Amino acid sequence: MGIGIDIGGTAIKGGIVDHNGVILEERMVNTQNQMGYAQVLSDLVLLIKELHHFSPEETTVGIGIPGILSADGATVVSCPNLNWKNRPLKKDLEKELSLEVLLVNDATAACIAEAAFGSTRGRSSSVMLTLGTGVGGGVIINDRVISGAHGVASEVGHMIMAENFYNCNCGKNGCLETFASATALIRYCHKRLAEGVESDLKTSENFDARRIFEAAKAGDSLALAAVNRLARYLGWAIANISDLIDPEIFTIGGGLSGAGEFLLERIKAETKSRLTYPASAMPEIVLASFRNDAGVVGAANLSRFI
Amino acid sequence: MGIGIDIGGTAIKGGIVDHNGVILEERMVNTQNQMGYAQVLSDLVLLIKELHHFSPEETTVGIGIPGILSADGATVVSCPNLNWKNRPLKKDLEKELSLEVLLVNDATAACIAEAAFGSTRGRSSSVMLTLGTGVGGGVIINDRVISGAHGVASEVGHMIMAENFYNCNCGKNGCLETFASATALIRYCHKRLAEGVESDLKTSENFDARRIFEAAKAGDSLALAAVNRLARYLGWAIANISDLIDPEIFTIGGGLSGAGEFLLERIKAETKSRLTYPASAMPEIVLASFRNDAGVVGAANLSRFI
Repeated sequence: MGIGIDIGGTAIKGGIVDHNGVILEERMVNTQNQMGYAQVLSDLVLLIKELHHFSPEETTVGIGIPGILSADGATVVSCPNLNWKNRPLKKDLEKELSLEVLLVNDATAACIAEAAFGSTRGRSSSVMLTLGTGVGGGVIINDRVISGAHGVASEVGHMIMAENFYNCNCGKNGCLETFASATALIRYCHKRLAEGVESDLKTSENFDARRIFEAAKAGDSLALAAVNRLARYLGWAIANISDLIDPEIFTIGGGLSGAGEFLLERIKAETKSRLTYPASAMPEIVLASFRNDAGVVGAANLSRFI
Repeated sequence: MGIGIDIGGTAIKGGIVDHNGVILEERMVNTQNQMGYAQVLSDLVLLIKELHHFSPEETTVGIGIPGILSADGATVVSCPNLNWKNRPLKKDLEKELSLEVLLVNDATAACIAEAAFGSTRGRSSSVMLTLGTGVGGGVIINDRVISGAHGVASEVGHMIMAENFYNCNCGKNGCLETFASATALIRYCHKRLAEGVESDLKTSENFDARRIFEAAKAGDSLALAAVNRLARYLGWAIANISDLIDPEIFTIGGGLSGAGEFLLERIKAETKSRLTYPASAMPEIVLASFRNDAGVVGAANLSRFI
């Protein structure tokens, strides 16, 4: 059992999670970040107290944050979605609660959910890549989350791969997420269309990543080139990560993982072609099990992985 | 105290290492690999027995190997210098000895020596890059060596960076060691000279990496371009490693580290320019403390880091 909270830009979700990773009680409130930090804090306290009432034997609560934490995990250094900077969230919450508060990056929470109950269950070393608007990540080695000496480990999306035609939101050029996110797919297709490439995508003005995958599966050559490009950079990143820390398994989550085997088989082939020891050291690469519950379930199990 | 062995292509060195990382007794024999595995094995047994005689209270011996080990650390999967493939060295030695035998990659042994007594002492997470003929590495997280699910972690030299004008010995193109080793420096200079670039290096037919650094320090523009290129790729790799596992400190060893601050300051600048959080999460980057003794000292302390 555990209490997990997932703070998102629009909603704060909380739940009581049982030994099998099932959410027994769930609560949700809107994220009133426009009302300021104090308001979100007070909403969080109420939500956690309500959940604790259902599970009074709990002594900790885990909270997933869409941002960067300090190395000691006590402070939200930066959280653009909520407009927070250097907020001592652990201390502020523990003042109001009779629980120990543990904070974690939300992509790492998802990685924990997979390791505890999902696609990487039972594996002591795993890496999760979440492919959405950006690319997030989580790294578990020897059954422990790697948060880093400065709290910024698992920023897989910002590993620099090669020069790209647009800059990353972080200000750098060439980050993995500018090649391997939904944004990357869409921007690449728009660029190629503007260059005069023919494609079925021309018929829909505001196509999204799902539409690109549909077109690719239907054989549209631009959409297929975009998907193959994304898989190439992901395979390259996975091979480099394997050369460094050689995890047992990689799991692919986030919205783009909905493309399923069509995407997965391409990522596997691209990884294998770049590994130093493809015959003996190919990691497993699988699709994530959890969808929307990953944040709450992972946060509720954080104490097992730190 | 500990017994450490360093198997190299020309010599096998062994020593009794004290609590301060000092070698109290040292023995060396030639590596008679042309006589076959059985001969090297028997020489190893004699060497270890002799050292154990000096330090009979020891219960383990650590052995550094210039090759790839199996995930359980029992078998030498591949060791090109000795022409070994799938040799069950741990079992073969333990049959003849009253000691537990622990095997480790030699670059990882050097990383342990630095973490136990050298430049990264007292840090729980560190990455070592050894710049020599190739590029080797060692990764320590939470005070434990990361050897990987398939035994091939810390192959930092084979992370693919970009297309390069020659292939790596491993068969891939673009490996870090084709940009950031002594070999890489020399080949790049020869290539540019063949293209007609003017340089003082033209006067010495068989220049080595030391000569290139000397010329760079004296202001030779080709040599300087070669050193800057090497530093650029190293900084890039260090930034990517930091984005993934965010170690506290990197240490630079191997022959090229003899170039000292001239090389180090360039690597630091190139790293900083590629980090996602350069202001708050710049790792320390230092020069390794050990030279020739790193293998023996690290192997003798292996049991503390596994």
